[in-house]
Amino acid sequence: MSHVVIIGAGFGGLATAKALAGSEIPVTLIDSNNYHLFVPLLYQVATAALSPADIAEPIRHILAPYSNVRVVMGRVAGVDTAEKQVHLTDGEAITYDRLVIATGSTSTYFGHDDWASYAPSLKSIEEARAIRTSVLQSFELAERAQDPVEQERLMTIVVVGGGPTGVEMAGSIAELARHALARDFRHIDPATARVILVEAGPRLLAAFPETLASYARRSLERLGVTIMAGKAVERIDAAGVTIAGTLIPAATMIWGAGVRASAAASWLGLTADRSGRIPVAEDLSVVGKTDIYALGDTALCLDDAGRPLPGLAQVAQQQGTHLGRALRANLTRGTALPPFVFHNRGNAAIVGRHAAIFDFGRGRRLRGFAAWLLWAAVHVVLLVDFAQRVRVSLQWLWRYLTYRRGARLITTPPQPTRAP
Amino acid sequence: MSHVVIIGAGFGGLATAKALAGSEIPVTLIDSNNYHLFVPLLYQVATAALSPADIAEPIRHILAPYSNVRVVMGRVAGVDTAEKQVHLTDGEAITYDRLVIATGSTSTYFGHDDWASYAPSLKSIEEARAIRTSVLQSFELAERAQDPVEQERLMTIVVVGGGPTGVEMAGSIAELARHALARDFRHIDPATARVILVEAGPRLLAAFPETLASYARRSLERLGVTIMAGKAVERIDAAGVTIAGTLIPAATMIWGAGVRASAAASWLGLTADRSGRIPVAEDLSVVGKTDIYALGDTALCLDDAGRPLPGLAQVAQQQGTHLGRALRANLTRGTALPPFVFHNRGNAAIVGRHAAIFDFGRGRRLRGFAAWLLWAAVHVVLLVDFAQRVRVSLQWLWRYLTYRRGARLITTPPQPTRAP
Repeated sequence: MSHVVIIGAGFGGLATAKALAGSEIPVTLIDSNNYHLFVPLLYQVATAALSPADIAEPIRHILAPYSNVRVVMGRVAGVDTAEKQVHLTDGEAITYDRLVIATGSTSTYFGHDDWASYAPSLKSIEEARAIRTSVLQSFELAERAQDPVEQERLMTIVVVGGGPTGVEMAGSIAELARHALARDFRHIDPATARVILVEAGPRLLAAFPETLASYARRSLERLGVTIMAGKAVERIDAAGVTIAGTLIPAATMIWGAGVRASAAASWLGLTADRSGRIPVAEDLSVVGKTDIYALGDTALCLDDAGRPLPGLAQVAQQQGTHLGRALRANLTRGTALPPFVFHNRGNAAIVGRHAAIFDFGRGRRLRGFAAWLLWAAVHVVLLVDFAQRVRVSLQWLWRYLTYRRGARLITTPPQPTRAP
Repeated sequence: MSHVVIIGAGFGGLATAKALAGSEIPVTLIDSNNYHLFVPLLYQVATAALSPADIAEPIRHILAPYSNVRVVMGRVAGVDTAEKQVHLTDGEAITYDRLVIATGSTSTYFGHDDWASYAPSLKSIEEARAIRTSVLQSFELAERAQDPVEQERLMTIVVVGGGPTGVEMAGSIAELARHALARDFRHIDPATARVILVEAGPRLLAAFPETLASYARRSLERLGVTIMAGKAVERIDAAGVTIAGTLIPAATMIWGAGVRASAAASWLGLTADRSGRIPVAEDLSVVGKTDIYALGDTALCLDDAGRPLPGLAQVAQQQGTHLGRALRANLTRGTALPPFVFHNRGNAAIVGRHAAIFDFGRGRRLRGFAAWLLWAAVHVVLLVDFAQRVRVSLQWLWRYLTYRRGARLITTPPQPTRAP
């Protein structure tokens, strides 16, 4: 039976593996982490509302019942399409008959890679933890600072990028300062912290309708977030963020501005689009290849109107389920792969304290507390594991009732241990 | 009003601060972390059963309601007893009228400090996370290893030290391998992992009565733990642990053998005992000082029979509450400081799957499932925060019913961010 190799255990890769699980088809799922990460909730780890384990589930555990699926924790170095092999960085080669590329996206600093060391993005648990440490540590230092200028720098947080990530981060940090930390300090008032959200484009949330974006803007402003739209960041360094020639001194800077597809296109020697995405046909096969498929953030998949599908978890997940089922039918019964059709379940963003916006397309919208309730319900259901659902639901309920944040830990990097 | 400065927000220091909270007495509590850590449950973080935030609570949050208590996150460099000042590493000096030293203990490798990089101890969240990563990563590597010798090394875990920490670690790792990971791998059987517990003394749990220690031994052996008592470790390096001239190749090594009091004695220019402890009078004042007190693991406090009180959370907590109340009465009403009397609430250790031993002294003992239930109830009550109690209780119940472990994440050190 043909061997299906899937690279990446994000929403797309995991959905593909699940759709193939329990069949006769041998499947190998490769990821550099041992866990599936629920990235849409990563901003809650960065702002001390959830613990990493609340939004991450061991991949092995999810797939443990299915003996046809093997999980490999490893990093891919490249693909040999002639030999049909995936090469891992440790030298192992895994031979495939069909290859599914679901390697997602990374942050891009638009040629300013040195900015990354000052302004982490929000793509991994490690980055979320670094942001959490920076915010909390800065407040600790501000509490003890004598110099008011330094105190102001320490209490200034700049979020770059007015997309959903930037909006959710800015709102959540403002909430943390205004509510969770409100009574904890003696010399500073955390509610006076400056949270600045910078967007190069003319308005926040360009992917959402104007009315929802305006609502989001008002919600954030009510939380005390300063919004600077139409301003490009010129420089990020240890001193702060320079915007339109003016330095804004800041101790915490967060990058939510640019996303680029993974390096998978170069593995295949393909010409990617401007964002690094691999063009795929409507059955998700990579254009020009018959045994390789791509999906999720790393694939350029066009809708009926010829527009690229957005880089959303629901797109990747639907594509993964579709492709997994299609491959299953193809490999067991020889059925041709049907085209993928995306069903928009609603594009959402959280805008501060228990308010959200939802865009279902074709003019159907929802905003405010009802939208937040829907968002919360959807995210709890989407969380992989039942125990996680219970835990996260209880924590949200608790936080909603008390404004509190449980995971406010300033932790340093682990002690180095011996190389294995 | 006299200013009370407390160094250390462990069980002793925090209890002192709480007993002084809400009074007119200005109190400053200094700790190098921003959280109070529930150290007795740290082994559950190291074995993926709990998340760090489940057993750590922000110090500021605990003391937020009490405006007379100020919390300072900082590291103490030394104490100037002539000027009555505590010096922090960043140059700040905090003047005290009364000083409480509650700085706890650290691990000691008995002159072999290089062993620390191969065998972390279990004193901090960072170490617990490093151990968790090492255990889980080794199983991942074993799953992919071709060489059976290397596979055996990767699946060998050596725990050094047969006190409660070592016993709890060994039992919990054996459980993790036997139950939580049992079905997750395809090539290896985690249940065949070797967990070796090494103790230099003649038997495990020297502080417990023989009958309880024997019960613990049998419980661990039933879980598959190999116990090597009466064997001293000669060497620890990247290859493994050398015991009685024989190298045991191991990928994960954990140090639970030696504890030493903090460096506080040297701050005061005092002669400490062999374990680095500061001798205190029965009112917990440092011998030879009238305005300095010490308690918990860093103090040498004798009981009625002239034996040192053990380094247990309950000792530190009782001392802290006692000293806080005594100082409150002394500073507000001039009352003399009464002597401290320790009330043994029972010394416990967990020995594998939902079994425990309890020693209440004077021949009163408990063991098995009933002891575990008591232990769980006590620890849930002792956890500082109500939300934590609910969360940890539910997780324990869930794990008890399912054998599962939720926090099985292999995470790497956070990305470096800018120096503040």
